Amino acid sequence: MKNQPTSLPRRRLLQGGAAALAAAGLSGRAAAQSKPLPGYVSWKDGPSMIVHSSNTLETKRSAFGLSVLTPASKLYIRNNVTPPDAAIVGDRDAWSIAISGVKSPATLALRDLKVLGASSVAMVLQCSGNGRGFYPHKPSGTKWTVGAAGCVVWGGAPVRAVVESLGGLAGGAAYMTGTGGEKIPAGIDAKSVIVERSLPLSAMNDALLAWEMNGEPISLAHGGPLRLIVPGFTGVNNIKYIDRLAFTAKPTDARIMATRYRMSPLGSKGSPSQPSVLEMSPKSWINSPNPEHSSLRAGWHQIHGVAFGGMNGARSVGVSLDGGGSWQEAQLVGPDMGQYAWRQFVLPVNLKAGSYTLVSKVTSTDGEEQPRERPENAGGYNNNSWLDHGVKVTVA
Amino acid sequence: MKNQPTSLPRRRLLQGGAAALAAAGLSGRAAAQSKPLPGYVSWKDGPSMIVHSSNTLETKRSAFGLSVLTPASKLYIRNNVTPPDAAIVGDRDAWSIAISGVKSPATLALRDLKVLGASSVAMVLQCSGNGRGFYPHKPSGTKWTVGAAGCVVWGGAPVRAVVESLGGLAGGAAYMTGTGGEKIPAGIDAKSVIVERSLPLSAMNDALLAWEMNGEPISLAHGGPLRLIVPGFTGVNNIKYIDRLAFTAKPTDARIMATRYRMSPLGSKGSPSQPSVLEMSPKSWINSPNPEHSSLRAGWHQIHGVAFGGMNGARSVGVSLDGGGSWQEAQLVGPDMGQYAWRQFVLPVNLKAGSYTLVSKVTSTDGEEQPRERPENAGGYNNNSWLDHGVKVTVA
Repeated sequence: MKNQPTSLPRRRLLQGGAAALAAAGLSGRAAAQSKPLPGYVSWKDGPSMIVHSSNTLETKRSAFGLSVLTPASKLYIRNNVTPPDAAIVGDRDAWSIAISGVKSPATLALRDLKVLGASSVAMVLQCSGNGRGFYPHKPSGTKWTVGAAGCVVWGGAPVRAVVESLGGLAGGAAYMTGTGGEKIPAGIDAKSVIVERSLPLSAMNDALLAWEMNGEPISLAHGGPLRLIVPGFTGVNNIKYIDRLAFTAKPTDARIMATRYRMSPLGSKGSPSQPSVLEMSPKSWINSPNPEHSSLRAGWHQIHGVAFGGMNGARSVGVSLDGGGSWQEAQLVGPDMGQYAWRQFVLPVNLKAGSYTLVSKVTSTDGEEQPRERPENAGGYNNNSWLDHGVKVTVA
Repeated sequence: MKNQPTSLPRRRLLQGGAAALAAAGLSGRAAAQSKPLPGYVSWKDGPSMIVHSSNTLETKRSAFGLSVLTPASKLYIRNNVTPPDAAIVGDRDAWSIAISGVKSPATLALRDLKVLGASSVAMVLQCSGNGRGFYPHKPSGTKWTVGAAGCVVWGGAPVRAVVESLGGLAGGAAYMTGTGGEKIPAGIDAKSVIVERSLPLSAMNDALLAWEMNGEPISLAHGGPLRLIVPGFTGVNNIKYIDRLAFTAKPTDARIMATRYRMSPLGSKGSPSQPSVLEMSPKSWINSPNPEHSSLRAGWHQIHGVAFGGMNGARSVGVSLDGGGSWQEAQLVGPDMGQYAWRQFVLPVNLKAGSYTLVSKVTSTDGEEQPRERPENAGGYNNNSWLDHGVKVTVA
């Protein structure tokens, strides 16, 4: 380990004894589950999830643990459209993707991609609306708290390698436009529902066409057999079941790009003139202790949580027990999986009986600080307010 | 990504076209499974595993993929003794461990440990006998090839923090001795079967008492509810279901320490005077292409595999197509998870029809090179010969 592990003063146990420890109550027991898991994700760990709807499942704070990566069994689900039929993961290597805007456009099967390149990246996958539940104006959409996010490893072919193999970019390319392979029902205007997003060309640099997540073939629920992975960009930009990748002069006019996922002023509708929801910003939150704990006893606790910088790594994390009045520096622990991953932070504290507002604040490696206030916008996107993400706990 | 992704020359696709690619055959299809999964690990991914016996399961080369970490569903199993009853993971927080050789000896429940410290470490977990199958003298024990190893993340309390909380080490401690909680049947000499290992005190520095693996509570099969994790040391030293941790002046005289897991000269029996199997040495192997592929077609391939340094990270990896006659430097890809983790390496190659002996050789960050020859010993331990771990493939 690169970092010193956290430790407690020796007087802790000498004074308190095991009985006090045994009563500490940090057992991570989960609250009762609200709704059953939908059938297509019946393999998820039910007690770790909050089921908002069949297409929106959130990870509980208590489920993130200490191991950096989020297992597939606990990773959130958010689908804009009903997923394609499971038959598409029956013969994964036969899945194909049409690539255009390159000098030699081609349709490649997944088995073709496997000989074009091989790499992997650890990254925070986070829904654009994670934290929406903290907006007082109650935007439409799922009221996520912290758990529409996870840190996972993707394996696949670098987009740059694929593009190079097809002769490089054609002239005039300014956007990387990915399109999901969801079936559009007949009679519906495709532009109104198709999942198609245009990203700045720079997003190509670290992007993958991925067929693995956490060492396994990507499940249908998470976008398998093939998903566009754009590290640092919010979830919607990481196109599931991707079947078209186009390097285009203009962004798509699909509704999900043109008017949705925009940072619209309160009370206004989305429009292409408003900033799009793309790169993530620095964010952190505390996972333990948390209000899911049925009881917290006075004594030592290990406050821990996750912190990331968005497009850059986490450099340091401050933790406050009084809602931001005073701060202590937490320790970053465990493996540093690169600039797009999150780190876990730990702070040992001796909590006396009373009420606490625990908050955390990350500073990224380029010096950007997680803000106190949420970015106000009609859709409730990109909430990274440290104040919103705090937890109130009572110690008996 | 810190590293450049691999890529192929643009002429590759312009010349070969998608048809040639489609025929490349790198589909990772697994060979038929030999034996069914034992009931207690029925949740493993059968097609990824070679079942040697109910207590010994190996991961296939084709199952390691590109994502650095090995999911629990594919991680090898090797039990020295039949695991305890599954009831012990029914109330994980109640599991207790007796700690002695410290100034204030105590028995702590898992819930106690959770307030004493929190950290995580990514590490290669490798059976001491991994690679035994390549020894021509046919040592007794499982004939592992490459797959009695995986890279996983453990979360738990640092042993140092626990010791500090108990007043620090008592005088005279020279070994960290961990004991497994397996039930010893009546009428059997406990010393002959108990899983108890004594490690040099320095092993304490990065050790964890772990309750998580890859973000989930450790399964019974992998040593839950509590496992001693000693990064850099072979599997047997990472005591499952640990219920005693003692800091002792002398090593245990349990058979598994005294005479087993010794680097014994060929033809001799194990004895305490011989070197014990403890720290791992630099090792790498190629996972793809491999002989499990039913056909390999001429054209571009991405050779990939894993490499680690044992007690240090992997600095560089050479790959040879001709059994070590000439070498090319591969590229390390994906997240660097620290000194005890493995890295994945990739080398794009254009293979013409013919036969190839693909081998890889890692050099660790402290300059130690993976050797050509296996370390000869009666038990077939610690095999890190690059020649043994090569693969022969035929390209049509």
